[in-house]
Amino acid sequence: MQRRGVTVWFTGLSGAGKSTIAEAVAKQLKAESYPLEILDGDIVRTNLTKGLGFSREDRDENIRRIGFVSHLLTRNGVIVLVSAISPYREMREEVRDRIGDFIEVHVSAPLEVCEQRDVKGLYKRARAGEIKGFTGIDDPYEVPLNPEINCQTHQETLEESAAKVIAALQPYLQTHQRVGALV
Amino acid sequence: MQRRGVTVWFTGLSGAGKSTIAEAVAKQLKAESYPLEILDGDIVRTNLTKGLGFSREDRDENIRRIGFVSHLLTRNGVIVLVSAISPYREMREEVRDRIGDFIEVHVSAPLEVCEQRDVKGLYKRARAGEIKGFTGIDDPYEVPLNPEINCQTHQETLEESAAKVIAALQPYLQTHQRVGALV
Repeated sequence: MQRRGVTVWFTGLSGAGKSTIAEAVAKQLKAESYPLEILDGDIVRTNLTKGLGFSREDRDENIRRIGFVSHLLTRNGVIVLVSAISPYREMREEVRDRIGDFIEVHVSAPLEVCEQRDVKGLYKRARAGEIKGFTGIDDPYEVPLNPEINCQTHQETLEESAAKVIAALQPYLQTHQRVGALV
Repeated sequence: MQRRGVTVWFTGLSGAGKSTIAEAVAKQLKAESYPLEILDGDIVRTNLTKGLGFSREDRDENIRRIGFVSHLLTRNGVIVLVSAISPYREMREEVRDRIGDFIEVHVSAPLEVCEQRDVKGLYKRARAGEIKGFTGIDDPYEVPLNPEINCQTHQETLEESAAKVIAALQPYLQTHQRVGALV
């Protein structure tokens, strides 16, 4: 019995709550010593995609690289939590096809809610015209058509969102439990 | 007992035999089902570092990204074989420090031997001035001062080179054997 890896892909607008849910899930998994990596958009832009901007082409390349690394980890039994706006459906599907073991989580809240939260102050800057091509403001976000999980963060608690993800992970977690976590 | 990952970093001139040794090692490890990834310079330039050139800055960024991915895999128990010219000592040391479990393999042959092999026809193009900044011709290669392994491919067989690497891997392989390979 081989322990199976999987990529959980959190997609959605800035401020929707992707990283927050990913961190809550990570906390639970770490407590039980599952092999785990978080690939957060910001970490990735520092280490893998420095120099890339926010044009369609650069966004696609950004997602492709995250997908490449997620695939390597997933096929070696790691549970990978990716948190990235990833606005284009086509690229998400490309990554899904490549990785295979893939759980898409659409993290959503109305734009006005995300904008009100504005954790990083990015919406303010986008509205002021300081940032061009900001997803949701002057760049499109293509809603997932068939995500495995929907987390509507304006209507459910963080605990509820995290619980949905953990439930979807069960078939994978069980393969680790059988052989002993982290061996 | 946790299975331990490690990065084996093959450095040396183009044509020295890095990928050839890496593949020979990989073949033996795969036969015994160890979790394994090969990060070859060419694969990486397609998937992680497209657009980067061969300036000092771009070469450093190339190595840094390979190092980032190797680190993620290594800390999750994977045996990673990296094959990259990686001409600068400082970057190799940076990667070594980051990863920790690191075996540096200096793969070498005299420049004239590498040039005679010229597997990819690159030396010919560099001599013709079609490629600028080619390592060994008009760009420096900084020889490792204390590599774990030296493979002088003009003086030893492929089997001998691979055997040295496999021997150095034993402490890591044993942690996998104890818990059962690939679990």
